[in-house]
Amino acid sequence: MTTLSKISEKIQKKYSDYLQRFQEILAIPSISTQTDHKEDMARMAQWLFSQMAQLGLENIQLLPTTSNPIVYADWLHAPDKPTVLVYGHYDVQPADPLAEWETPPFNPTIRGDYIYARGASDMKGQLLAQLIALEILLQEQQALPFNIKYLIEGDEEVGSPGLQRIIEENRDLFRCDVVLNCDSTMHAPDTPSIVYSLRGLAYFELELRGPVRDLHSGVFGGVIRNPINALCRVISGMHDEDGRITLPGFYHSVIPLTDEERHELNAGPYDDAYFLTLSGAPGLFGEKGFNAVERVGARPSLDINGIFGGYQGEGAKTVLPAKAGAKLSIRLAAGQNLADVEKQLRAYLETAVPAECTWHLSVHSMGPGAIMDRNSPYMQAAIQAMEYVFGKRPFFRREGASVPVVGMMQQVLGVDSVMLGFGLPDDGIHGPNERQNLPLFIKGIETYYHFMNLVGTMD
Amino acid sequence: MTTLSKISEKIQKKYSDYLQRFQEILAIPSISTQTDHKEDMARMAQWLFSQMAQLGLENIQLLPTTSNPIVYADWLHAPDKPTVLVYGHYDVQPADPLAEWETPPFNPTIRGDYIYARGASDMKGQLLAQLIALEILLQEQQALPFNIKYLIEGDEEVGSPGLQRIIEENRDLFRCDVVLNCDSTMHAPDTPSIVYSLRGLAYFELELRGPVRDLHSGVFGGVIRNPINALCRVISGMHDEDGRITLPGFYHSVIPLTDEERHELNAGPYDDAYFLTLSGAPGLFGEKGFNAVERVGARPSLDINGIFGGYQGEGAKTVLPAKAGAKLSIRLAAGQNLADVEKQLRAYLETAVPAECTWHLSVHSMGPGAIMDRNSPYMQAAIQAMEYVFGKRPFFRREGASVPVVGMMQQVLGVDSVMLGFGLPDDGIHGPNERQNLPLFIKGIETYYHFMNLVGTMD
Repeated sequence: MTTLSKISEKIQKKYSDYLQRFQEILAIPSISTQTDHKEDMARMAQWLFSQMAQLGLENIQLLPTTSNPIVYADWLHAPDKPTVLVYGHYDVQPADPLAEWETPPFNPTIRGDYIYARGASDMKGQLLAQLIALEILLQEQQALPFNIKYLIEGDEEVGSPGLQRIIEENRDLFRCDVVLNCDSTMHAPDTPSIVYSLRGLAYFELELRGPVRDLHSGVFGGVIRNPINALCRVISGMHDEDGRITLPGFYHSVIPLTDEERHELNAGPYDDAYFLTLSGAPGLFGEKGFNAVERVGARPSLDINGIFGGYQGEGAKTVLPAKAGAKLSIRLAAGQNLADVEKQLRAYLETAVPAECTWHLSVHSMGPGAIMDRNSPYMQAAIQAMEYVFGKRPFFRREGASVPVVGMMQQVLGVDSVMLGFGLPDDGIHGPNERQNLPLFIKGIETYYHFMNLVGTMD
Repeated sequence: MTTLSKISEKIQKKYSDYLQRFQEILAIPSISTQTDHKEDMARMAQWLFSQMAQLGLENIQLLPTTSNPIVYADWLHAPDKPTVLVYGHYDVQPADPLAEWETPPFNPTIRGDYIYARGASDMKGQLLAQLIALEILLQEQQALPFNIKYLIEGDEEVGSPGLQRIIEENRDLFRCDVVLNCDSTMHAPDTPSIVYSLRGLAYFELELRGPVRDLHSGVFGGVIRNPINALCRVISGMHDEDGRITLPGFYHSVIPLTDEERHELNAGPYDDAYFLTLSGAPGLFGEKGFNAVERVGARPSLDINGIFGGYQGEGAKTVLPAKAGAKLSIRLAAGQNLADVEKQLRAYLETAVPAECTWHLSVHSMGPGAIMDRNSPYMQAAIQAMEYVFGKRPFFRREGASVPVVGMMQQVLGVDSVMLGFGLPDDGIHGPNERQNLPLFIKGIETYYHFMNLVGTMD
């Protein structure tokens, strides 16, 4: 294994070449949400195809989906060695609002330590760093000390609609020992971190109906169960005074935090003040018995994401409306099951919605959560690689948001993911002036390189 | 006093003339909300001016307001006799949706027993019937057995913004013993009724704010007091399980129903089935211990008329919003005071809004309720006149909706109103195909005639 200084030197020598490739892919507006970028999506997939071919990867193919193709490639000449499936995506978010970009989103521009362009951090930078690390490894050794597969999708930013079906229908093709998920971030340039748990997401829409049509609130006020008041009552009852969710059986399967995990989470940089400052709220509130980092990482939550009913215009209208609705989402903690949570919500509604209203619940989306074994050899390899490159042991994070593909890989392929990425929380992903920290891009190459070498030492 | 058959005969003879006048005023689109009808408003005021002059009324004037003028007139030559102030309005609602009218809204059309036009029932029909009754009286007697004043405003449909100030500034001009409020309805063509109580209305807008900006519900869910969830909790707490409003001291000054009133209310045609059928709701709900007609007429209510916050579009957005708001209105029962109710609401919010949110309450409108003495000689005169014309004693109603001018007259002039009008609940006021029942229009003339004659017998 090449030492840190040697690999740094190598990267330094070819840096302008790497940067040129980075700029090349950032110039392609591979926006998956907008159909007029179909051709750009194809160009981006083609670029990956060529790059993979140049690296000497095999069996390269564009797997058709109902939307944009998945780029697949592999190199499988290390029998009895582990197989790593690299997950990434080559699509990006739209660049709106265009006026707020300091330089055009698809005209990548270097300012200081950063390269600015849509997709720089999410996630073309991570993808390229991983490919370059493989390139260095292959150039050094002419072969790999392990097996590798690539699954690079083009629909992540639109919710990966067809991904699960494709993986289910091609289990053999994607079979592996671990997923290296490069679609991730770390805490700060000098503070490496690894996410080992993600919450799931179940997103619903709830509607309550009362009278058959809007009524006059003077003529009927006090006689009719107002669907807005009733909806508020139903929503209010979903939490108790201690911030706990009241759906029947809701916490039954939540995996409790161990003392060790708690200690570990609290050793990180996320104290309550962090969340308070970032949100600007007058105070924090959540489930009793847990602090903020524990609540976000390890405990479920239930939020109303939108509510609507009656008159919303200027001034006053004395209406007692026929209906009211809400967007309601539940973040599932590790251990919770999507179907169970839907049943628990329906069971609650059965008893909570008053008899004078009818209700209808529909599902917008369901994505599983995941928790990964921190002690697996792959996780340990990631820690070791990061520690080697950053001179500092990464801390373990539990992510409150959802990355459905991680749970999907657990459920369909039965494997954990190692979340290893070098984006930063303030990279402005999905917003204007997205950027990637270039020193971190280089450290990313180095970390992927060491990670792969370490996997190569396993049996 | 002329007998019923004699006055009916007189009306019959001049019916085509009355109808022509009715059609004349219905053809004027005196829409107060729409500034491009300013000229029509002036034409309508002018029509009243001329009509009153022809009747021999005196001191006729157009009192300027910030909006449309008030038409004033009087006849004050009966010393030591009561003075009746006739209240009405000459403006109408907009005619939208135009496409739903079977005949154009300002092209009055007779079909069967009804005349169809905007303003037919609300309230040009009532206004004309009263003026014709006065005309008959004056033609018979060349003088009046009592004193009369007219206050016909042009801004009722826009909430009478300047009315209170004008009355306050002209107390002497409007001084009277009773108000005859013609802006009213009765239960059914063969079932006369008199409203003796109206609820007040306090209409607010409540906003809760939490974080300074919209947050990601995955990153912050479970840590931040979601303003929508908090708003629902606050609203939910405004009622207890028994449908009672929980604002501190809220019921303290509500005038309880006497056994007699209860008996009287329940003797009318409004049972629970009536409200259930009319609303189409799966069931009724309200304050425990009262039935529907009692709740609507004699008990206060609190309704959310609109609610909004977060994402309301199609599909899902994982937002934890910065704020949420609601339109909230309280119908005040007789005895309750507007300023007190606002204080009670604020006192509730002080304790109910959680510390992790800030709140702001603004007032959209405030209109007092009113309860009138059913035993006053004027009320008894109205009953007698109705009984005489309809052959049936009217029943007493308490109206759940608000007619702010009635409470205003009590507060500013210290006088009760007699609500005497001949619209019907299904006249379609404010909607398309508004109509006035013509046999009732005639009975209205007769009733006003007898009422005025009876007032003339008082000292």
